[in-house]
Amino acid sequence: MIICDGMADRSIPELGYKTPLEIAKKPNMDWLAKRGISGIMDTIAPGTTPGSDTAHLALLGYDPYETYTGRGPFEAAGAGIELRPGDIAFRANYATVDKNMVITDRRAGRIHDTQPLADAIQKIKLKGAEFIFKSTAGHRATLVLRGKGISHEVSDSDPHEEGKKPPKIEPRFQSTEGVMPAYPIITGGVRKYVYRRRWAAKTSKILNDFSQKSHEVLKKHPMNIERAKKGLPAGNYILLRGGGVVPHLMPFYQKFELKGACVAAAALVKGVCKLAGMTVVNVPGATGSVDTNLDAKAKAALEQLKTHDFALLHIKGPDEASHDGNLRAKIGIIERADGIINKFIDAVDFIAITADHTTPISFKNHTADPVPVLISGPGVRTDDVKSYSERSAAHGGLGRIHGKDLIPIIADLMGKSHKFGA
Amino acid sequence: MIICDGMADRSIPELGYKTPLEIAKKPNMDWLAKRGISGIMDTIAPGTTPGSDTAHLALLGYDPYETYTGRGPFEAAGAGIELRPGDIAFRANYATVDKNMVITDRRAGRIHDTQPLADAIQKIKLKGAEFIFKSTAGHRATLVLRGKGISHEVSDSDPHEEGKKPPKIEPRFQSTEGVMPAYPIITGGVRKYVYRRRWAAKTSKILNDFSQKSHEVLKKHPMNIERAKKGLPAGNYILLRGGGVVPHLMPFYQKFELKGACVAAAALVKGVCKLAGMTVVNVPGATGSVDTNLDAKAKAALEQLKTHDFALLHIKGPDEASHDGNLRAKIGIIERADGIINKFIDAVDFIAITADHTTPISFKNHTADPVPVLISGPGVRTDDVKSYSERSAAHGGLGRIHGKDLIPIIADLMGKSHKFGA
Repeated sequence: MIICDGMADRSIPELGYKTPLEIAKKPNMDWLAKRGISGIMDTIAPGTTPGSDTAHLALLGYDPYETYTGRGPFEAAGAGIELRPGDIAFRANYATVDKNMVITDRRAGRIHDTQPLADAIQKIKLKGAEFIFKSTAGHRATLVLRGKGISHEVSDSDPHEEGKKPPKIEPRFQSTEGVMPAYPIITGGVRKYVYRRRWAAKTSKILNDFSQKSHEVLKKHPMNIERAKKGLPAGNYILLRGGGVVPHLMPFYQKFELKGACVAAAALVKGVCKLAGMTVVNVPGATGSVDTNLDAKAKAALEQLKTHDFALLHIKGPDEASHDGNLRAKIGIIERADGIINKFIDAVDFIAITADHTTPISFKNHTADPVPVLISGPGVRTDDVKSYSERSAAHGGLGRIHGKDLIPIIADLMGKSHKFGA
Repeated sequence: MIICDGMADRSIPELGYKTPLEIAKKPNMDWLAKRGISGIMDTIAPGTTPGSDTAHLALLGYDPYETYTGRGPFEAAGAGIELRPGDIAFRANYATVDKNMVITDRRAGRIHDTQPLADAIQKIKLKGAEFIFKSTAGHRATLVLRGKGISHEVSDSDPHEEGKKPPKIEPRFQSTEGVMPAYPIITGGVRKYVYRRRWAAKTSKILNDFSQKSHEVLKKHPMNIERAKKGLPAGNYILLRGGGVVPHLMPFYQKFELKGACVAAAALVKGVCKLAGMTVVNVPGATGSVDTNLDAKAKAALEQLKTHDFALLHIKGPDEASHDGNLRAKIGIIERADGIINKFIDAVDFIAITADHTTPISFKNHTADPVPVLISGPGVRTDDVKSYSERSAAHGGLGRIHGKDLIPIIADLMGKSHKFGA
């Protein structure tokens, strides 16, 4: 399954109302569309704009409404932290605050190689919970809390803008009627509100303590003193956001009887696959950008398919180009993605191609427009679709499907589905 | 969004197995179909015949299975009564009963201008609840009960036929697994059955008391004595039906970040929009019939769009013609509806056209056949559909969607949707 992140688009006037996919030269995708079955797919639901995390949960067959609690756990898992169900994970930024605790740079001058700072923070003792703190790419890091009676229902300390003080972390109860049920997995249902309040209050206190103590450690850290000498902003405050409780996902193999592997550069996608119990491969040269080494990723996926039934190959470039509004780069990366597909055509039985969501060049962000999907392989009922695009796929034999139904459909084609009933 | 009530139809042998939409000359709808994206839509669900109330709830993005309790609240809101969540509202008819309490005319000789009767009724004192009673069009009226521990789970006093006595109102429990959850909003879940029984019993008693006392008042009322002199049937009994508890709908603006206005003649549609927190406009000359002043309605909708993001323009005529089995009138009103659409083509970005349900001429009532829907506007992925009809829309790029997904899809195209996840 090849997921070209954000590849789908809308009608673009400068392209004669066509989409980048319709303009790009992609002989392999078109060849597969001719020999396969196409359709359009709402990754989550019609009119619901997918995040990258919820989209990949759905594309792996998990209902995001049941399993998603926040982005933190997936980032943390993608960063290689061994999580346990019940852990609370956050995305973190090294930021710069001045003497009045006002944020002057949310990314601390795009500080990098920050593991020494993380090591210093890891020595802190917190009352009420253990924690794991790890630096990831650039100015980013991840924080995991572990302990009894803690909660992800707390606010962010990242105000998402500079010139403000980081707000105190406070209990923030998620709607029980909206998209995000509280403790969907841990409790499997209703937990008395009084516990939710108590746990959220306790967790807020722990996190505010963490913020305070980590600031004390960071402002005196040699790396920051060194940076000050060079006139660089110090990484002296940890901004937290995207908290979520680690969901207990039924392992992918158990759910679909497919031994799965993941080839991706993006930590988030790796994290989703990791928490789904899949094999996650690190590929040298896979950057998660338009300059990524696609050949190396294709080779890695083929390698995994020697020992696995299923491989997810994630290509981040089209989404990056779309967020930048760079039409030429988007068409370019689609054509390069097409280039590696012929490596799979002779080597594997079933190939599925899709996007996790639409990212229109005109909008520079995700939208809810459905994405095109194709499946080719032995026995597949073909249709009249002759090319792979948003528009042509809408006439395909799959009709309009939901993201979480894709893997069950593929598993069934592979002979791995079981009767419901007898 | 232009909703032509009951516009969709089935194959009609006399039209060469075409539908009224396929026969009607509607250059503007066809023009939009060419430049937009089409599909078919199950307003509620495949094979589920929509009522006008449930259909409009769904078309405004509300799940009717979660929000619908009965027609009464929407009629009452449409009649201009300021409702509060928890109120119990009924549709009412002025009817004629003889000395033995047998109904001789369910509509009291199509009595009209009945507000003096309503004023007399309003002076009654009921034990256990307050009430609001208001005459609406013709022989119709609406009753709203307000108080603690009352319920909409009661039977009708309207036997829907003449020659019978109005039955006593009794508790009537709605299925908890069917289409109508009991107290879906008020309690947000489980309420002990004993309370439901107690409240329904209390409400039945209040309503039987109301029926008795209002009959006493009406039979002595000067207006009825006057009618008797003229040999006209007296409006001497109030038949009640369609009771429902006023749902608390999350305001349309809060749900979709679209400031919405409603231009409709039908009280029911106005009521749904009112309870959704939309601006509801009264248009002189809008009759809710085939003779309605469509130009005035179009003008009113355009006026509202100066200060609103979204306008619902409801055209009742096609449904009326269908209920009458009047093919010529149905084609005529479709063509007249088409005539006003070009006023919108240059004036607004996004236009959606649909029907709330199918009302086949042959069936003279609503059916569950899906309705055609089109959306046109900047960025929309067009398809090969060249005209607007049930048959052509089935090949469109939207595929087959649900009514409650339409507004989320439109909101997303308008850039108003928010990511689920990150």
